[in-house]
Amino acid sequence: MQKRDDRKQGAENPPKNKNLKKDWRRRMKYCFGVDIGGTTVKMGLFAENGDIRDKWEIVTKTEDEGKAILPDVAAAISGKMEEHHLTKEDIKGIGVGVPAPVTAEGVVNGSANLGWKYKEAKKELEELTGMKATFGNDANVAALGEMWKGGGAGCKNLVMVTLGTGVGGGVIVGGKIVVGQFGAGGEIGHMCVNYHETKQCGCGSYGCLEQYASATGIVRLATEKLESETRSTLLKKEELSAKAVFDAVKEGDEVATEIATEMGEYLGHALANIAAVLDPAIFVIGGGVSKAGDVLLPFIEKPFKDRAFFASQNVKFALATLGNDAGICGAAKMVLGD
Amino acid sequence: MQKRDDRKQGAENPPKNKNLKKDWRRRMKYCFGVDIGGTTVKMGLFAENGDIRDKWEIVTKTEDEGKAILPDVAAAISGKMEEHHLTKEDIKGIGVGVPAPVTAEGVVNGSANLGWKYKEAKKELEELTGMKATFGNDANVAALGEMWKGGGAGCKNLVMVTLGTGVGGGVIVGGKIVVGQFGAGGEIGHMCVNYHETKQCGCGSYGCLEQYASATGIVRLATEKLESETRSTLLKKEELSAKAVFDAVKEGDEVATEIATEMGEYLGHALANIAAVLDPAIFVIGGGVSKAGDVLLPFIEKPFKDRAFFASQNVKFALATLGNDAGICGAAKMVLGD
Repeated sequence: MQKRDDRKQGAENPPKNKNLKKDWRRRMKYCFGVDIGGTTVKMGLFAENGDIRDKWEIVTKTEDEGKAILPDVAAAISGKMEEHHLTKEDIKGIGVGVPAPVTAEGVVNGSANLGWKYKEAKKELEELTGMKATFGNDANVAALGEMWKGGGAGCKNLVMVTLGTGVGGGVIVGGKIVVGQFGAGGEIGHMCVNYHETKQCGCGSYGCLEQYASATGIVRLATEKLESETRSTLLKKEELSAKAVFDAVKEGDEVATEIATEMGEYLGHALANIAAVLDPAIFVIGGGVSKAGDVLLPFIEKPFKDRAFFASQNVKFALATLGNDAGICGAAKMVLGD
Repeated sequence: MQKRDDRKQGAENPPKNKNLKKDWRRRMKYCFGVDIGGTTVKMGLFAENGDIRDKWEIVTKTEDEGKAILPDVAAAISGKMEEHHLTKEDIKGIGVGVPAPVTAEGVVNGSANLGWKYKEAKKELEELTGMKATFGNDANVAALGEMWKGGGAGCKNLVMVTLGTGVGGGVIVGGKIVVGQFGAGGEIGHMCVNYHETKQCGCGSYGCLEQYASATGIVRLATEKLESETRSTLLKKEELSAKAVFDAVKEGDEVATEIATEMGEYLGHALANIAAVLDPAIFVIGGGVSKAGDVLLPFIEKPFKDRAFFASQNVKFALATLGNDAGICGAAKMVLGD
């Protein structure tokens, strides 16, 4: 047993923050959860019991191939440690989510949103901070966050689907992220759900789930529907959005309900195929589209049940609950482990 | 450190078998790999370095709800231990594959092939033998076997597809079987690949992969094709089989090639969707249909590449190599671990 207090600096300088002062008395360790997005980097300081002690944001500088991003993250962490009188010995590690596939070794082979080309992200941040870093894909990391503290709390086998501008996803098996061989685990948005589609997806393929179930995809379905629609509807061609569609659904609008039904069929069928392969306990639906709330789930669950293998009929569906905090929470959980 | 040799009985009675005698000198431990099928139970004795030391079969007695199966397995193990002068201290455990979903706790909720209803299989076999038992679904266990010693050797992220009477599958992530929440992980045969199908699958759904890519499914595709076919072909309506189709493909038969192309498209597209979710390193194709050999793979790989997300374009394809031994190998590997 180590007898000397390894928080030498802290011992001379206990934190002023009330909660951190308590932690300090209990010799609690910490970790950082970092969620690097194309516009802002969200950051959190977590006590090892999972409580968030601090939360802040910095701007993401994507210019010059995003070369300032990791140094800025390191500087922000260093500043926060100073503010709270924390030393490296107090920190178990830094978890980071990035908008790109990340290999198990923490290597990113390019991120359009950050301007990164090939980057040994883990190695670079560890050299900058002198602390252990763990990297993951942002959608995977958010899934882990929702498993830990969100819509999937209590489940170790979970698939999260993020319905935003695109469709992302994260697969958790036995409490761990399925990274995949090339860091592309959970790219659910690029499952093909329509082999007859003639319009191309952003990825170059045709008929990807993202073309129907993302916010953009829903607007596309709605636009196409309204072109030939003669019934009266609350939807207006010039003001279409996923929100407008689900707001109209809540008002009982028939046309909007049919659009939601079509979107839900593509998504529900894709999730039934995922269930046949992975047999998860729960699907957690997040992203901007999920802000529609509980009205969304039946549109997904019905076609799911119509097509799911009998053993997977009892998979649960839930909405994500952490919102923008899912990323920092999951990033912290990568460090804290089981 | 334990000083006394814990192989007391063995010390007085060294095994006669040459290899086991060597193991005995090296104080090697063993495990049993058991593959319970509807007709026979295949069994293997493995040294902990992975070498197979003995291999035999017993009959599966499915009468009376298959209540004799586990006692027969226990008796066969006990007999083999006596034959080789092994004590319980020499055995690390018993791994068992069964043709049914198995929960992580080793519970089987019924197996049509074995006549079992609800059975706490792990508990029962442990009580019968006094040794640790680990149970898994047979297709999942075979996948683990192929990862360990077969077509997927060297890969920790693998999806195996077994093309037999039906289509089974096993998913391995990070060297471990994905059991799933209800023991139904890897039920790849029941992914829906054709939402317009009007004929029903054995599972009650419509358009399952199994309806096109199993031996039975290939015969169905061939039968339907021949009904309207006017070109000359080596295929005969009354002698159709998956083997006949691929034998004719090898002879350059146009009609057979079109049947294989159709089968391969359904399978390749399903695997592309799996790759988007799991991003495996390799797909291993096994089961009776895979005996067609290397001629089979291009029919699957081409449609796969046409539809796979760009990050998964480099997934490898391989044929299974262990044949009937995949089950006992995988079962042993469950016991031996990483």
